[in-house]
Amino acid sequence: MNQPITPPITPAPVTAAQFDRALAGWRAIVGEPHVLTSAADLAAYRDPFAFGGTDEHDTFAASAALRPASVDEIRAVLRIANQFRIPLWTVSTGRNFAYGGAAPRLSGSVVLDLQRMNRIVEVNETLAYALVEPGVSYFDLHAHLRANGIRLWVDPPASGWGSVVGNTLERGFGYTDYGDHAATQCGMEVVLANGDVVRTGMGAIDTGTAWQVYRPGYGPSFDAMFMQSNFGIVTRLGVWLMPAPPAYLLGEIQFQHETDLDAIVDTLRPLRLDDTIRNHAVIEGGLRRAAGLSARSRWYDGPGAMPESAVTAMLRELNVGRWNLHFALYGTPELIDARYALVRRAFARIPGARFLATRYAGDAQPVDGGDRNLAGIPAMSAFRMLDWRGGAGAHVDFAPVCPASGRDALRQYTMVKTRAAEYGFDYYGGFTAGTRHLHHIFAAIFDRDDAQQTEQAGALLRSLMSDARAAGYGQYRAHLAYMDFAAAQYGFNDGALLRLSETIKDALDPNGILAPGKQGIWPAAWRDRRGYT
Amino acid sequence: MNQPITPPITPAPVTAAQFDRALAGWRAIVGEPHVLTSAADLAAYRDPFAFGGTDEHDTFAASAALRPASVDEIRAVLRIANQFRIPLWTVSTGRNFAYGGAAPRLSGSVVLDLQRMNRIVEVNETLAYALVEPGVSYFDLHAHLRANGIRLWVDPPASGWGSVVGNTLERGFGYTDYGDHAATQCGMEVVLANGDVVRTGMGAIDTGTAWQVYRPGYGPSFDAMFMQSNFGIVTRLGVWLMPAPPAYLLGEIQFQHETDLDAIVDTLRPLRLDDTIRNHAVIEGGLRRAAGLSARSRWYDGPGAMPESAVTAMLRELNVGRWNLHFALYGTPELIDARYALVRRAFARIPGARFLATRYAGDAQPVDGGDRNLAGIPAMSAFRMLDWRGGAGAHVDFAPVCPASGRDALRQYTMVKTRAAEYGFDYYGGFTAGTRHLHHIFAAIFDRDDAQQTEQAGALLRSLMSDARAAGYGQYRAHLAYMDFAAAQYGFNDGALLRLSETIKDALDPNGILAPGKQGIWPAAWRDRRGYT
Repeated sequence: MNQPITPPITPAPVTAAQFDRALAGWRAIVGEPHVLTSAADLAAYRDPFAFGGTDEHDTFAASAALRPASVDEIRAVLRIANQFRIPLWTVSTGRNFAYGGAAPRLSGSVVLDLQRMNRIVEVNETLAYALVEPGVSYFDLHAHLRANGIRLWVDPPASGWGSVVGNTLERGFGYTDYGDHAATQCGMEVVLANGDVVRTGMGAIDTGTAWQVYRPGYGPSFDAMFMQSNFGIVTRLGVWLMPAPPAYLLGEIQFQHETDLDAIVDTLRPLRLDDTIRNHAVIEGGLRRAAGLSARSRWYDGPGAMPESAVTAMLRELNVGRWNLHFALYGTPELIDARYALVRRAFARIPGARFLATRYAGDAQPVDGGDRNLAGIPAMSAFRMLDWRGGAGAHVDFAPVCPASGRDALRQYTMVKTRAAEYGFDYYGGFTAGTRHLHHIFAAIFDRDDAQQTEQAGALLRSLMSDARAAGYGQYRAHLAYMDFAAAQYGFNDGALLRLSETIKDALDPNGILAPGKQGIWPAAWRDRRGYT
Repeated sequence: MNQPITPPITPAPVTAAQFDRALAGWRAIVGEPHVLTSAADLAAYRDPFAFGGTDEHDTFAASAALRPASVDEIRAVLRIANQFRIPLWTVSTGRNFAYGGAAPRLSGSVVLDLQRMNRIVEVNETLAYALVEPGVSYFDLHAHLRANGIRLWVDPPASGWGSVVGNTLERGFGYTDYGDHAATQCGMEVVLANGDVVRTGMGAIDTGTAWQVYRPGYGPSFDAMFMQSNFGIVTRLGVWLMPAPPAYLLGEIQFQHETDLDAIVDTLRPLRLDDTIRNHAVIEGGLRRAAGLSARSRWYDGPGAMPESAVTAMLRELNVGRWNLHFALYGTPELIDARYALVRRAFARIPGARFLATRYAGDAQPVDGGDRNLAGIPAMSAFRMLDWRGGAGAHVDFAPVCPASGRDALRQYTMVKTRAAEYGFDYYGGFTAGTRHLHHIFAAIFDRDDAQQTEQAGALLRSLMSDARAAGYGQYRAHLAYMDFAAAQYGFNDGALLRLSETIKDALDPNGILAPGKQGIWPAAWRDRRGYT
């Protein structure tokens, strides 16, 4: 798979001649080097972790990629796209490999790659925010803050190379007190399909200074409508940043039994609700924890999922819990101690709980084994998972939203683990704790060079989504291949929510040029493609 | 003013005969007693605090009011409204008197009054949320929690009779840690103009239980788009509730000098940013503080605004600061003490700061002088302002958003105070502290029976809005009479934000039946009314 394709694949109604004229127009706008059409160049826009059922030659394949450098160039690009009705698939940097990378939902789409728009427009240390363009990664922003001695932290997602704009728009999350990226976004600049440039919230005040300090502005607030959507192209985005704390504590609590999950969630929830723990704490499954310390082959080499006996032996030998709660407390040493005492007291009620904690000064970096993400330092630690199973490691994620109740968490865990084992996959996952919900993240890890594993990963995902649907759970996000399926789960009143999305889509983008099919939203012109990959 | 009108006033294109047919249809749906057309009944739908320039006979006048009891009745009402193209102005309970009460923006509109839909659909104590209908007030919800021994608090706005749904949709705010009502909203049911019923976020999962625990759901999130808007009729709304804390502290810090405002804001902001103070603390102007303790006539009886000398004498005698910071700390006694020590240390740097604090057990009620709102107990304390100036007290509010910087706060204060004095009004106001912004709230208080005061209140508001515009500040909300003016301040790119609103408006409501003119958004059919009152 991921073999070179022969461009141009064009979206059906566009002829090769029309496409050539469009390309010529775009070259005049963004410059020859920034219109990519060769098979070699377009390889970067394939799904890097394509799995079973999605690896055909013409699936999720871009026909070209454009790299504009400015809003004006984007507006000019849109004029041509509208003229020829050629769909554009926008990516900030396209680095989330588990959900399709930079590949478009609709084959033949032209990828609008915003990586060259990489300015950090403003950082305000006093009011603790940044305004950035789509090409700025968490690494970039972190480096900028450090280089300029600005005492603010970023909240890195699992992979620091991700775009701040892209991650936020897709509602990614991190691990500090600012872990809910959508909730810490404030203000956007958006180019609509017709080229109109909108600044949301207080950004619409021409000479104002409140764009990044008050989210809603006056009248309807649209920011959240431009997340996980294809209603516009976000060219600037404001994010709130956490003031560097005077000190912090990184804590881990290990639990010994699978069924402890129930009590862990029910103990953690009140501590999240009363702000004792304010960060996006993670309840990490033992196997995922162990994967950071060793390779799977050391413990099991047979077919199918790792047997319980092997998992148990591994956890014991590596000194890892069946569940491992990672959390952080930020603030003055005195407040940290008082809060940690509450945390200990609460979790000590779970038999066998083992407590580990390290205290740091605010400007100190975590020592070996400490998670740098929790100290606001971007890393690529999530990629360690690719080594777990060996070979050309890849993964596809299943991410149902879970109410923060022990019963729901245990139910989802059991459901996913059982189904995964059926398809020969380990339960590699955990729960990231919002306040009233958990993000349950399960990764199906496979070797891209193993055709059977690759096929089974896709089949497993389909089964898990059906299970979730039957149980009344919905995903917060989905791979390109399952965007329609995930959207269909949100089916109240015969799909009223999607109808609303599509009514707005058609009003804002009558030619259907922006990201057809994204999150299951198809413009009128392409609506017959629903469900087709 | 507020004299009885002779109904029916109909919106221009509707004939009296058509209107009669519509009324007959509505009577068949909601029942005879719930279609109000008499002058006496419609008096309740006039602007209760109408001020200068807006008190003409046919301004903001409803032609009728309907009180449906269910979503099905609303849908049937909408069919008739669409048929005759009669605009409906939705109110939950219409209790915010400072912004127009239950009166419609477009005269002749039929008020859709949802007060009969007053069910508390669900309260979940474990996950700390409620799902309510529009007719539920903060008093109602609070009483329900108390009656059932549910250990959750509401966050009351200034007037406890307000609707939870209405206040939240208009982005009202309160005083506890849950003071940002828009930010603690989670999930909506909305009836669109075409009768389609949408449940947002996780509510679209038919058998799900996560509607009130995770806000965005999958794909674009629309909740914020239905706030301060006329895109739909919200019939259910989820709100997060604060778990009753084990203890709390109510603090007041009095400051002696007008220019202390600068330092107060710059001292408070870091404490809000690092979560030492988590509630919506209020920096209350001395005059407003004094108004709770005495009447104006005791201190000054001459023309125009109270002179500085009288204000100074009043504050001294009443033992009130020029600025008075009200805040609350919730949690365990130990954490409260540690946080209060940080607060004291920070504000002690401002010369003359005087500290008052009272500690309570979580289930204790504030003693005399303590603000019950801060303990989650709704009250009507805001109405005390109506007695300040005497006569038939009324007020209209000017509410610019202010970045949380001392310089901006002092600039806005000086601007407003100076202009108010020019028109003969005292500076009756204060700042409610978000994290990175402040809501600056100024109330122009007038005696409705005094024609000159009433006239001047309107004139002052217009001047303040012009001042704000010139200075680059925008309002978060505005009275009916100034909705267009406030919207025009958000003018970036020749009004791109309003263009976006109106594109969506026309797509969702092609007949223009839902609340024409709300927040400056006019449907195509009524767009020529912009600016006209």
